[in-house]
Amino acid sequence: MAKILDGKALAETVKNELKDKIENWVKLGKRAPSLRCIFVGDDQGSESYVNNIKRQASNIGINAQVLRYESTITEAQLIQEIKTLNDDSTVDAILIQLPVPDTMNERNVCNAISPEKDVDGFHIMNIGQLCVDMPSFVPATALAVIEILKRSEIETFGRNAVVANRSKNIGLPIAMILHSDKRHENGLGMDATVTICHRYTPPEQLKVFCQNADIIITATGIPKLIKANMIKPGATVIDVGMTKVIDENGKAKFVGDVDYEEVVKIAGAVTPVPGGVGPMTVAMLLHNTFQAAKQLRNKV
Amino acid sequence: MAKILDGKALAETVKNELKDKIENWVKLGKRAPSLRCIFVGDDQGSESYVNNIKRQASNIGINAQVLRYESTITEAQLIQEIKTLNDDSTVDAILIQLPVPDTMNERNVCNAISPEKDVDGFHIMNIGQLCVDMPSFVPATALAVIEILKRSEIETFGRNAVVANRSKNIGLPIAMILHSDKRHENGLGMDATVTICHRYTPPEQLKVFCQNADIIITATGIPKLIKANMIKPGATVIDVGMTKVIDENGKAKFVGDVDYEEVVKIAGAVTPVPGGVGPMTVAMLLHNTFQAAKQLRNKV
Repeated sequence: MAKILDGKALAETVKNELKDKIENWVKLGKRAPSLRCIFVGDDQGSESYVNNIKRQASNIGINAQVLRYESTITEAQLIQEIKTLNDDSTVDAILIQLPVPDTMNERNVCNAISPEKDVDGFHIMNIGQLCVDMPSFVPATALAVIEILKRSEIETFGRNAVVANRSKNIGLPIAMILHSDKRHENGLGMDATVTICHRYTPPEQLKVFCQNADIIITATGIPKLIKANMIKPGATVIDVGMTKVIDENGKAKFVGDVDYEEVVKIAGAVTPVPGGVGPMTVAMLLHNTFQAAKQLRNKV
Repeated sequence: MAKILDGKALAETVKNELKDKIENWVKLGKRAPSLRCIFVGDDQGSESYVNNIKRQASNIGINAQVLRYESTITEAQLIQEIKTLNDDSTVDAILIQLPVPDTMNERNVCNAISPEKDVDGFHIMNIGQLCVDMPSFVPATALAVIEILKRSEIETFGRNAVVANRSKNIGLPIAMILHSDKRHENGLGMDATVTICHRYTPPEQLKVFCQNADIIITATGIPKLIKANMIKPGATVIDVGMTKVIDENGKAKFVGDVDYEEVVKIAGAVTPVPGGVGPMTVAMLLHNTFQAAKQLRNKV
């Protein structure tokens, strides 16, 4: 049976480490790290997500606030609000809960955040810096996957990895870090051979690549896409998928991309859903927030 | 026998098209596109390369000049020279022949060029924009590979591609374009499943990936790395390698990564070395130069 990579426990460890570091930071007379979560509209899922971030941030000593705007706010007005936060020296980190309303261009909004406060890592400067192995903010979901691999001591050097996702905030940064050279300046590189799969990868080819993979990262939103017969015995499987389904009793639940019950019999290590990448993502966002606070402080 | 993808002939076609477009541009009363090639030191290979670019640029109506500096110039001085060119509205395009002297940080120098004039596409803004599928300057070697595939009508959608190189100006942009979504805004995406291989990919695994590939792009500098028994019959092989070797008669010649004599019997299409990606690279640099001229003109 596969080792269960318990993202919830790992996230608690990361948050406890951060809590200690932030306590020391504040003891040195420095201002507590501060995070502003922008949220437009009234989607309940989004609201509970940002409230969850705020609560977890507060628990470890980060001053977090949720800024909610009506969906009638224009792109120009929202960007003006962001600029005010950029210029506010008491704010270290800004994140925007996506999606924004259809009236706005998501990229314009993301690029309005100062790259130094962009803890979601969606600004093109951060993406560009990541892609050339410079220090940058790495999107939290990608960083969560990488951190789970590292803390679980999964060997990546010279191993085959499949990334089933090509989005700019998940698959791209994961593939970048997995394939790149560890000796480069940000030190994140993992020296794996990486295959990027996506919706146009034929199913039989996805199977071929997965069967040859030591590490599979999947983020497709297709329940049970990754089956036991696609897994090399002993491989590591990281499931970023999170799809709401209705179970046989009519109850809603979240499932990943992996046929967990069967895959767990073949794989060497696997993340559950829920309790895998999800909680670790929030922890890494808080990690980025403290990073932003330290970097901004060092610049003063 | 494989179809020979004649990069020299394709490059002539591209340059003739550019020549016509630039003639029309000038006929409309617009200033001829202008390119400045910066070259530091006295390496003869580099000097003949930039002089070659200048000659080919001049042939199609681009006002090109080589600016040579002694290797004693400091990074700060060189960056000041670049800034002067950035501010010069009669200059559309700037390229720096790499490597720069060891006294300088290559990235600082590349990032000093205004992204709008960075026809080599090495500025992190251009790399970031490329990685999120925004319009950007794509490094000429990568663009040469893509243009050869397109003009030779090689199908990429849903096909398997191997990129044997992970450098930031060759392998990375090629992998980015090959794997990404054609419907995105820069329209470059080719929707292939892409495997990025590199020095730590075990040789037997490189073989496995190549044998399953419809398209192989190799840029390793290892002569005869890609052998006939690694090729799926009918596959396309693009050879970016260019290594100086001494032949049996004691003469220097350039060879690629591909065991050409044998691979040509199995592959469906293959680029020769020399006469493949090399000439196309210069053509795409000139393409980028005209692009820069048009974009800067549109901003005025």
